[in-house]
Amino acid sequence: MLPRLLLCLALIATAPFAMAETRPVLVVHGGAGTISRAQLTPELRAKYEADLDASLDAGYALLEAGGTAMDAVMAAIVVLEDSPLFNAGRGAVFTHAGHHELDASVMDGATSNAGAVGGVRYVKNPILLARRVMDASPHVMLSGQGAQEFAIEQGLELKAPAYFHTPRRRQQLKDAQARQAAVLDLQYRAGTVGAVALDKVGNLAAGTSTGGMTNKRYGRIGDSPIIGAGTWASNDGCAVSATGHGEYFIRAAVAHDICARVEYGGMSLAEAADHVVMKKLVSMGGDGGVIAVDRQGNVAMPFNSNGMYRGAVRADGSRIVAIHRGDE
Amino acid sequence: MLPRLLLCLALIATAPFAMAETRPVLVVHGGAGTISRAQLTPELRAKYEADLDASLDAGYALLEAGGTAMDAVMAAIVVLEDSPLFNAGRGAVFTHAGHHELDASVMDGATSNAGAVGGVRYVKNPILLARRVMDASPHVMLSGQGAQEFAIEQGLELKAPAYFHTPRRRQQLKDAQARQAAVLDLQYRAGTVGAVALDKVGNLAAGTSTGGMTNKRYGRIGDSPIIGAGTWASNDGCAVSATGHGEYFIRAAVAHDICARVEYGGMSLAEAADHVVMKKLVSMGGDGGVIAVDRQGNVAMPFNSNGMYRGAVRADGSRIVAIHRGDE
Repeated sequence: MLPRLLLCLALIATAPFAMAETRPVLVVHGGAGTISRAQLTPELRAKYEADLDASLDAGYALLEAGGTAMDAVMAAIVVLEDSPLFNAGRGAVFTHAGHHELDASVMDGATSNAGAVGGVRYVKNPILLARRVMDASPHVMLSGQGAQEFAIEQGLELKAPAYFHTPRRRQQLKDAQARQAAVLDLQYRAGTVGAVALDKVGNLAAGTSTGGMTNKRYGRIGDSPIIGAGTWASNDGCAVSATGHGEYFIRAAVAHDICARVEYGGMSLAEAADHVVMKKLVSMGGDGGVIAVDRQGNVAMPFNSNGMYRGAVRADGSRIVAIHRGDE
Repeated sequence: MLPRLLLCLALIATAPFAMAETRPVLVVHGGAGTISRAQLTPELRAKYEADLDASLDAGYALLEAGGTAMDAVMAAIVVLEDSPLFNAGRGAVFTHAGHHELDASVMDGATSNAGAVGGVRYVKNPILLARRVMDASPHVMLSGQGAQEFAIEQGLELKAPAYFHTPRRRQQLKDAQARQAAVLDLQYRAGTVGAVALDKVGNLAAGTSTGGMTNKRYGRIGDSPIIGAGTWASNDGCAVSATGHGEYFIRAAVAHDICARVEYGGMSLAEAADHVVMKKLVSMGGDGGVIAVDRQGNVAMPFNSNGMYRGAVRADGSRIVAIHRGDE
């Protein structure tokens, strides 16, 4: 009798967990500060939407099959890095010296593990390198030639410089250099990519990847590889990936600040993300946006620029892909 | 009559500000994880205490004369960078390749302006370079050779590699390499320096400078140059400089998290700093400590290691310089 009673109690105790499988959520972005509606031809719109859809497909298939939020974030970002449309991986902007210096970071909300790389060249998918830093090194952040060396040791796929070249980005470098200025204008740095996810067991993850700013010099590092600025994930708060004028995002610790307002300030995810993006950053003069998700599956995608390439599959299974404000 | 009335009103309106001059506060650290009491000879203790005192003297003299919190932080940190006793500037640890790669960051609580450098060589005072990034560039963070180039353009004082060499750090590199491992042990990375200050007009500032880890490779970047991890200052919350096992400090966004708990969570500075250092970091396995000050002049200096080189001049003018727990 006693064993049966214990078994019965065990079944009752574990039932809620088995039943309460979380509905997964995936949100992706391809950068805040889009081309204007007027310049966006139907053909180009279709291309952007197809790549955002492919990114969602890649990540969400893993989540539906019971994969981790971290793996879904990787899969979604790799699709965007491989697209020439976005400023990450292939299609990244050119530096002052005519190279590509790529930044990326990832964070796992379940463990608070994180990995980041700054200023790497030749690495096809910097987001996979950030993941390797997290999983296979005792460090969180590696930079420059050292990070490159680590990528080679880890056997990551490398590409010759020509792989990263796109005619549009080459023209942007020429424009920027003709203006003889560090180009902080939005058009020269739009296209950072990122993803946040909630998986079936209720874990959060976030990742971000970028080429930074056209014509950048001096080993400039923006917010994308900075844990707490461009990327943050904590099961106690939320998961955020940011895109925008990175200097402001570092100074506002955007990703961590949103989650801290949720965790300590009692704000909803939407309130916290809106406050930071639409008030705090606007008052500082920092354009951009974020994508965010919490453990309840709430999604926020605020941006204070003219648009943000974005897509989401929500907890109810509904999907959106949008570019400008009001596209949803 | 009207002009006199207006003058009178103006005097009344501004009087409270003129009267309510804040009592300045300065706190400095020379790294968590000190040598044991048993190994600390009276002579060596006197040397450490003399340098901490000199650091406090340099910064506090500026504060008393009405200088800014930011200038006081600079002055205090330069003294510690120039000392061979600490792991920053002169006396920094050796990298795997036998070089010195220095990281530093600063943040101004009044403006949320910030500057940081990662992996620079030859720069005598990396904290001054971080300040130049903040003041004279459109960026927040520069790295590697690019940061070096910026230092040269800005006319910062450079030193030949031998300037940074100290026999003790050379021996630590030999030890570390004999063990054939990335050396995460505390003894091989202790000595990061930092300062936080509150000035007479009530503004906060923070700064941190380090040589990182002995035998470090791959362009490893720790928490010291990461705004939000090693350094944070906001007049709305507090000012923090951290020291410890940097990877954990990045993953916990230590400096920003303490100030967020104060600003959003309603914790006192002492509660917030204690929670993060003594509970959160301990549960993660991250050793180290922080120094922190808020606009009311409260000071916190918790550490979870065997000691932390530290000193403070509090709002009441009292001064302490201490090394181990219970030294105060």
